[in-house]
Amino acid sequence: MKLWTLLPLLAFATTAFTAPAAEQRPRAREAGVIIGTLATGPRNAITDVEGVGVGHATLSEGQRLNTGVTAILPHPGNLYRQRVPAAIVVGNGFGKLVGVTQVQELGELETPILLTGTLSSWKAADALVERLLRQPGMEQVRSINPVVGETNDGYLSDIRARPVTAALVEQALTRVSLAEVPEGSVGAGAGTVAFGWKGGIGTSSRRLSKADGGYTVGVLVQSNFGGELTIAGVPVWKHLPDPAEYARSLAVPPPSTGDGSIMIVVATDAPLDVAQLQRVARRALVGLARTGSVMSNGSGDYVIAFSTAKENRRDPEVPVQPARSVAGEAMSPLFQATAEASEEAVLNSLFRATTVKGHRGTAAALPLAQVLQALDRAGVLKPDASPAP
Amino acid sequence: MKLWTLLPLLAFATTAFTAPAAEQRPRAREAGVIIGTLATGPRNAITDVEGVGVGHATLSEGQRLNTGVTAILPHPGNLYRQRVPAAIVVGNGFGKLVGVTQVQELGELETPILLTGTLSSWKAADALVERLLRQPGMEQVRSINPVVGETNDGYLSDIRARPVTAALVEQALTRVSLAEVPEGSVGAGAGTVAFGWKGGIGTSSRRLSKADGGYTVGVLVQSNFGGELTIAGVPVWKHLPDPAEYARSLAVPPPSTGDGSIMIVVATDAPLDVAQLQRVARRALVGLARTGSVMSNGSGDYVIAFSTAKENRRDPEVPVQPARSVAGEAMSPLFQATAEASEEAVLNSLFRATTVKGHRGTAAALPLAQVLQALDRAGVLKPDASPAP
Amino acid sequence: MKLWTLLPLLAFATTAFTAPAAEQRPRAREAGVIIGTLATGPRNAITDVEGVGVGHATLSEGQRLNTGVTAILPHPGNLYRQRVPAAIVVGNGFGKLVGVTQVQELGELETPILLTGTLSSWKAADALVERLLRQPGMEQVRSINPVVGETNDGYLSDIRARPVTAALVEQALTRVSLAEVPEGSVGAGAGTVAFGWKGGIGTSSRRLSKADGGYTVGVLVQSNFGGELTIAGVPVWKHLPDPAEYARSLAVPPPSTGDGSIMIVVATDAPLDVAQLQRVARRALVGLARTGSVMSNGSGDYVIAFSTAKENRRDPEVPVQPARSVAGEAMSPLFQATAEASEEAVLNSLFRATTVKGHRGTAAALPLAQVLQALDRAGVLKPDASPAP
Amino acid sequence: MKLWTLLPLLAFATTAFTAPAAEQRPRAREAGVIIGTLATGPRNAITDVEGVGVGHATLSEGQRLNTGVTAILPHPGNLYRQRVPAAIVVGNGFGKLVGVTQVQELGELETPILLTGTLSSWKAADALVERLLRQPGMEQVRSINPVVGETNDGYLSDIRARPVTAALVEQALTRVSLAEVPEGSVGAGAGTVAFGWKGGIGTSSRRLSKADGGYTVGVLVQSNFGGELTIAGVPVWKHLPDPAEYARSLAVPPPSTGDGSIMIVVATDAPLDVAQLQRVARRALVGLARTGSVMSNGSGDYVIAFSTAKENRRDPEVPVQPARSVAGEAMSPLFQATAEASEEAVLNSLFRATTVKGHRGTAAALPLAQVLQALDRAGVLKPDASPAP
Repeated sequence: MKLWTLLPLLAFATTAFTAPAAEQRPRAREAGVIIGTLATGPRNAITDVEGVGVGHATLSEGQRLNTGVTAILPHPGNLYRQRVPAAIVVGNGFGKLVGVTQVQELGELETPILLTGTLSSWKAADALVERLLRQPGMEQVRSINPVVGETNDGYLSDIRARPVTAALVEQALTRVSLAEVPEGSVGAGAGTVAFGWKGGIGTSSRRLSKADGGYTVGVLVQSNFGGELTIAGVPVWKHLPDPAEYARSLAVPPPSTGDGSIMIVVATDAPLDVAQLQRVARRALVGLARTGSVMSNGSGDYVIAFSTAKENRRDPEVPVQPARSVAGEAMSPLFQATAEASEEAVLNSLFRATTVKGHRGTAAALPLAQVLQALDRAGVLKPDASPAP
Repeated sequence: MKLWTLLPLLAFATTAFTAPAAEQRPRAREAGVIIGTLATGPRNAITDVEGVGVGHATLSEGQRLNTGVTAILPHPGNLYRQRVPAAIVVGNGFGKLVGVTQVQELGELETPILLTGTLSSWKAADALVERLLRQPGMEQVRSINPVVGETNDGYLSDIRARPVTAALVEQALTRVSLAEVPEGSVGAGAGTVAFGWKGGIGTSSRRLSKADGGYTVGVLVQSNFGGELTIAGVPVWKHLPDPAEYARSLAVPPPSTGDGSIMIVVATDAPLDVAQLQRVARRALVGLARTGSVMSNGSGDYVIAFSTAKENRRDPEVPVQPARSVAGEAMSPLFQATAEASEEAVLNSLFRATTVKGHRGTAAALPLAQVLQALDRAGVLKPDASPAP
Repeated sequence: MKLWTLLPLLAFATTAFTAPAAEQRPRAREAGVIIGTLATGPRNAITDVEGVGVGHATLSEGQRLNTGVTAILPHPGNLYRQRVPAAIVVGNGFGKLVGVTQVQELGELETPILLTGTLSSWKAADALVERLLRQPGMEQVRSINPVVGETNDGYLSDIRARPVTAALVEQALTRVSLAEVPEGSVGAGAGTVAFGWKGGIGTSSRRLSKADGGYTVGVLVQSNFGGELTIAGVPVWKHLPDPAEYARSLAVPPPSTGDGSIMIVVATDAPLDVAQLQRVARRALVGLARTGSVMSNGSGDYVIAFSTAKENRRDPEVPVQPARSVAGEAMSPLFQATAEASEEAVLNSLFRATTVKGHRGTAAALPLAQVLQALDRAGVLKPDASPAP
Repeated sequence: MKLWTLLPLLAFATTAFTAPAAEQRPRAREAGVIIGTLATGPRNAITDVEGVGVGHATLSEGQRLNTGVTAILPHPGNLYRQRVPAAIVVGNGFGKLVGVTQVQELGELETPILLTGTLSSWKAADALVERLLRQPGMEQVRSINPVVGETNDGYLSDIRARPVTAALVEQALTRVSLAEVPEGSVGAGAGTVAFGWKGGIGTSSRRLSKADGGYTVGVLVQSNFGGELTIAGVPVWKHLPDPAEYARSLAVPPPSTGDGSIMIVVATDAPLDVAQLQRVARRALVGLARTGSVMSNGSGDYVIAFSTAKENRRDPEVPVQPARSVAGEAMSPLFQATAEASEEAVLNSLFRATTVKGHRGTAAALPLAQVLQALDRAGVLKPDASPAP
């Protein structure tokens, strides 16, 4: 009964500013929040898609800097030699995503994906290129397309300083793990704010039934956007203190109400071609909509989707490549999986994020006790809902 | 207390096949379902946008034909001479929307919009052209771009017969009203099915505060799609009988589980340019997502958005046209209005639709008593929530 | 020495209105005009792509009607069961192409392509659907996406009458040939005007070397657009009479200077996926640009590209489909082939088209003697340049 | 008679490696090459559009580095406060253009445009942001969208070193001139190669007649692409030595045959909205096609178009903005102007570029004597064709 054992602990979070550490904050599903109807993968993480790795490097320096880099690797090999089919979809394009047009033209990723803070995105891109050019076998490479997404962490971090360094990028890449995906206020999520609360990194996955192909869809988000926070359909924003009021009650400056943004990365082992990946990517926005976002004017809402299916990888040296793709009818379950995992990944980013005092104010962790109370009243909590080990 | 007086009546609907007539079925808001936080316009209909008119022609012939035509007019004048800026956004393009590329290229509507059944869309387009060419002053016109949307009513109607005639198109156009918008199983909604229940035409509107510009956004939908029916965030589909089971219990063939489609028409009096209308149109999909759709593979999910602002109309004879457009920051309230009105329009299409026995089976009206019971349990019903007269 | 034997004959065309019959007008290459550097296929026609068929039905009724239907079949089987991957690209979208969004979403053609006159496009679409629904095995089909392109033949034909009938569509489909492709003033080209001269249907092909994959690219156009006619780089428009002047000199009303349009159909046996077909389709516009078009405001300039590669066909019943696609580097020769064949197909449409007296005036055949003289002076004519048998 | 006086001088270029200096190489029009039929502006440069400025910073370090930065300013004010409507069109997206999606979403430029070498694009973006953030009044800015285009100068320059510095960006910006636009091997064109010859920066303009609105269209290109070099329709590539052979004859390593890329910037004072600017931008690709490009697989071919019309500038503080836009019919002359100026700008980049010995070989200046001879034989040279002062 994880849910009820958590509640007393969480109540504490709302009565004092000494927020619980991340390890004490449950993921949404651990707290009884079930999104959708499909089963999760074993980790309920993007790393349930075999071969996908995630690494974080967090840069915290007093209150001034709360930023970082998160790296997502589609597979452990040399992506430049074994490219994965990919698509990018723009929900609202008020953002600086680096590397868009080449992915859209060729439909392939040739580098890891990095996420970071807005004004550091170009430095991160340059550092990623630097590192890749130094890899063995890359001596003759004179063109490479780094993909770097960002959201604006300028409330909690001194974003104008553009503090991301090559060392930080390196750190994120070397820390890549095929299993663990730390969530919340880490890596590129260290300084983000969502719905006025502390946002950050979140992840989730879905695994389709054998009848639907048995494919896995994994999602990772960097949440930094606004709207009316809705959890499992419940408008919890109505039942929570106004985040700005709440911040003031803690005698800290309120978070900006800025439009924010979200980066969504979708991985799947389903054998999809580029056009199909575009269709899948659009469904991540369905999940986003259900969390309460309308993709406001100032939001940079992007989805990058890729397939890890080995037979669909592309070796630039092979003149005619075999590939497989699922039939149109098989797409709908993948769409649903993407929508559900995206919604849940956003929730995980909020559930797991811890309060951060930052450059221009403080973003409080989502007050889970009140959230769960509201959800309980609405009858949507399920005890002990976490995925089986 | 409209809500509670309705409940006994509605309960009746679930116990016998003699469903209540449309006039006895409340709109969502009348039944206590409030979507979002913005105010509606006085009619809570697309016709709250001044000058917008809607007309229906329904074709019912025993059980064989349940189809029709719905016409939406952006303004009462000659659209060919006073064109409105417009945009079309494709959520999922498994559909036959006629007239897309010219609207996307020129950013203008030069004809009314028609909605009908899939396989009649080309006949309807031809009939619309025929009628417009016969108008006074159109004698020299040799190019015209009819815009005809459709969803597939092939379960309740003999769609292969392509029964829409010029007379039916004419009827829809002559019945256009600037006030009343009949909803449910009428016009192009006569034979549609949504979430396994009888869908149809629905409409809703939002009016922004003076501070946000005071603009009105109106939406009309033709609902014919699937998913997991969610109302005001509550997954009511879990609390309702399976529509197919329900149909069988009524000793009628169950509805197809087909992917279906939705046409969404968004009107606003906000002065927007074409690029802004594209952005607004995308937000209708936010509302759609919240009703439980993931835009499945076989769905044709389209949004047509136009601005009625007089200063933005285009006269092909005027070489340089003045126009106005709101600033970027003013877009977010319009986005929210569009999302809310689209969600509510879908609900209205279901709330108002009555049971239809058709060509290959029967689509039952959404059992409102059970729906409202589920909503009540979740604590989302508000008594007497209809807009003030 | 075909070229020089033709010249005296052609000279005749410029001195009297009794234009030579189509069989006396050479194709561009027969007259010594070589476009690009790649080899043609054996027929220098879209039917060089194995399995592709073309059929014309022409409707001529005195001077009033000069229109028709051209059908292009990607393969001789049932397209609805064995769909071909396809893409549509819009150069300038002032046109009414039916069936766009479903092709763009699913990336497949499930019907033949029809071309016709603008205001008949919806009737032609309806007739195509009627015919397909009557095919054996199609009894349960309730959704089908006809693709019908058009250009405006309203100068030479009474376009407002929308004269295309189901019988005419039927005729075009039953006349489909895998070999012969009549060009000029036939089928959907019966009433079109290009650069002020009589346009119509044209076709051409290119075959890549073994080293480049040995693939064939075939193009068919319906030319009806304007600009400054340029042949093999030579601005022949400067050396020709103004078409309007010329018409007046023949005591017939001059052609309209209308913006016109062009439909371009590209077929290839190269195994391409949908994203690659989009890239190929864009290159047809390169060829179009070289004929002197800037894709003027009122032009509907569209490209439909499909691959006939058997392994890439899609059977809706097969859950996971194998496919092959060429590597990125192999695309450039396909791009060049598409550009060259598109340019030459436009020229063939003009070279082969014969003078047509029509509804509102006359479009004279391109005066080939003067054209060839200008080309000869510029040094671009090659004797006996037709493809080897 | 500029043309004939130049010829002896130019002949010299082909007989010895001591190529003439830039000041001795004519622009295309000075050499008698007339593209299209529209008049140029007084400078035949992008700076004919009032207020547009261009600045170059060239980085040459022995043979190792031949790169640079070119800055284009839409107007002399603070772009962040007075944004210009803008559109970006992708011909072929194999490139790294920074800042794409925000321009596509909002339809506005808020920074100058920079051009540079591929692998330096992110450093240049970061340097541009650094500089803009330091401007007075920008202290609170935490989001800014730099637009940086690139082509790959990795043959003539050590591109892997990513040598562009903040100082170089600063230099380009401070050197911006509203009048002079140096062409050829300068700025971002220092190390580029086009059609196997030395490419670089080129510019051209067109001015419409009063009847067509009197608008000016200016184009600037950074040429680095391949194909079959065609000048005024003449396939001069057939009449020139193979660039690789030629390089070997000079005892220098031949240039790579790489796919290359082109950045095209289009400025106009016509009052256009975003959708119209997209349409204009597409026509730059018409001009590109006519120079012999098919936009090969590895090419990054981009167009950025903006309007300088004062009434269409956007102040983020103004809630409803007036604007003007030309009618659809008035677009065609703008399309033609864009196509012509783009084609001529490419030619100017080649005509003016001087031989560069670089990192991995040498790119020879286009041998003008031979070019002009071929053009003369084809009868396309006009003596003394330069614009009147």
